[in-house]
Amino acid sequence: MAAKKLRLHIENTRKKNPIFHTLPAHWAAACKRHKALARRIGEVSFGWDGDALESALTDATLLIGIPAQRDNLVARAPQLKWLHSTSAGVDGVLPLDWLPRGVSFTNNSGAHGRKAEQYMIMAYNLINSRMAAITANQHQKHWEALFSPSITGKTAVIVGLGDLGEAAARAAKKLGLNVIGVRRSVQKNRYADKVVTYKQLDRVLPLADFVVLAVPLTAQTRKLLDGRRMDLLKPSAGVINIARGPVADYKALEQRLRAGKLGGAVLDVVDPEPLPADSSLWSTPNLIITPHISCDDGEHYIDISLDLWFENLALFLAGKKLKRRIDPKLGY
Amino acid sequence: MAAKKLRLHIENTRKKNPIFHTLPAHWAAACKRHKALARRIGEVSFGWDGDALESALTDATLLIGIPAQRDNLVARAPQLKWLHSTSAGVDGVLPLDWLPRGVSFTNNSGAHGRKAEQYMIMAYNLINSRMAAITANQHQKHWEALFSPSITGKTAVIVGLGDLGEAAARAAKKLGLNVIGVRRSVQKNRYADKVVTYKQLDRVLPLADFVVLAVPLTAQTRKLLDGRRMDLLKPSAGVINIARGPVADYKALEQRLRAGKLGGAVLDVVDPEPLPADSSLWSTPNLIITPHISCDDGEHYIDISLDLWFENLALFLAGKKLKRRIDPKLGY
Repeated sequence: MAAKKLRLHIENTRKKNPIFHTLPAHWAAACKRHKALARRIGEVSFGWDGDALESALTDATLLIGIPAQRDNLVARAPQLKWLHSTSAGVDGVLPLDWLPRGVSFTNNSGAHGRKAEQYMIMAYNLINSRMAAITANQHQKHWEALFSPSITGKTAVIVGLGDLGEAAARAAKKLGLNVIGVRRSVQKNRYADKVVTYKQLDRVLPLADFVVLAVPLTAQTRKLLDGRRMDLLKPSAGVINIARGPVADYKALEQRLRAGKLGGAVLDVVDPEPLPADSSLWSTPNLIITPHISCDDGEHYIDISLDLWFENLALFLAGKKLKRRIDPKLGY
Repeated sequence: MAAKKLRLHIENTRKKNPIFHTLPAHWAAACKRHKALARRIGEVSFGWDGDALESALTDATLLIGIPAQRDNLVARAPQLKWLHSTSAGVDGVLPLDWLPRGVSFTNNSGAHGRKAEQYMIMAYNLINSRMAAITANQHQKHWEALFSPSITGKTAVIVGLGDLGEAAARAAKKLGLNVIGVRRSVQKNRYADKVVTYKQLDRVLPLADFVVLAVPLTAQTRKLLDGRRMDLLKPSAGVINIARGPVADYKALEQRLRAGKLGGAVLDVVDPEPLPADSSLWSTPNLIITPHISCDDGEHYIDISLDLWFENLALFLAGKKLKRRIDPKLGY
């Protein structure tokens, strides 16, 4: 007797950039890459901003994409067993009081590491090479020979050692940096020369030539890098944020950059996004802003994501615990 | 009987940035790093723009720094055996008809590789990540989510495989690029997947996602990358020049960038330098200009240079052929 095939709904939103849309063509290609597993999936529906959601929820066991309306899912989605977010950060849907008990909730951690490593290897050098000042000079048609030292041997303090933090550590090691990782538990990491806990954060910040923020945004990490902690840094230190804007206090950062009390910053995330045209961050000296593009593969984001999803599908079908599950208490 | 100590003159010019000035403190520190060799040096003089040159030349065997006046050195410097340039590129003093026969002329190739590798690892990513457009948007206070693909697996065609070209190849391999090196002779290089000669340049250009110019400027390499060759490139390809401005035709490059016929460019060298404020290169789209800082360690340039010089001094004292000798026929 063949096992019952699983019903899957894929929920998209036009609010996201097209690179994050899971289209039938992506699904078909992924099924070719994962033939045996794909045979276990029955009906698949695609919806946009809720247009096909309610009827799909009545019998779907699997859901990719978080619905905008999440109230009363117990009644609306009686068969639902697994909900998958196509993002890594789920700070937008915290707290998880809407998540029915017994539904596994996974995120897309792991889809971002390769691209994040490339961004980080650039970002360290952007700061070390004074590129914010050099590009500002270019826009003013001004030639000034701004030399810079070698980056080898400098120290990166990387806060968070998940998919993004580990990518930042890999990038750092490729540049010959000394890496201090900061995470909840002192757990060795092959790309970190040393790992400390958050309790020791204040003690390692003065060692940093670069501070990299790679933590999920939760109640605990909001304004983790505040003005007080920035004042523990060397005046030449650079701050790189590839996590979420609110994990740093950008008003405090801007003040210090404008006062020359920090070496520079590269921010891929701000709050709010898009950053309004009247924000004074845009013109802050020694600051480079990139538009939240650091960690997303603009060509294969969904392909990578579906490969990770299929990896979890194998575990799901075997009745095993899924990888990349969100812990409702931790919020990531 | 002790060997006669050698007379050395170190010639500086205020026209160069202070990071290129060899000061008594640099010399003293280098002598501590190379104690045994340093004992073989007798009187050392330091001169600025010729102010102590003529009297030093009368008895100096060794000269660091190329004098501005180079006529009749046979008569002015009868003891001179070895002239060392603190630059790698000697295109500014070509042709070498002023060089007395029997005087070894060495350059500073090897002092630039570490910093060049760091610049290149950034430059590939600057192009791949569309950073020229992103920084232009920042200056216009405009948020636009410009995503980009992963750089892994792309192809770099690196023209010249000396100190700089090899650094560009090392950087490329750290990013997972495919490397095609172009040089005079097909000589294997551990960082190049393939090496071809200049005769095959036109055949490999269509394969390039990045073309890196890392050749010395000579009569043969002037406008090596001209408009015709640019038209052999993919429309998405990026051009990176860390050699000398005139090895590419920048008018042709600017036209193609403005017409969207090339993906982007990162130019660390232009012609003339400093680039005049009225140059249209400054505002060419998808072009990043850096002020000739790609390959020079802003902190330890002279320390690195003197270490290379002492390595050659050991060869000189042993009567062996010096490394990094300029071939007067090739001009590098």
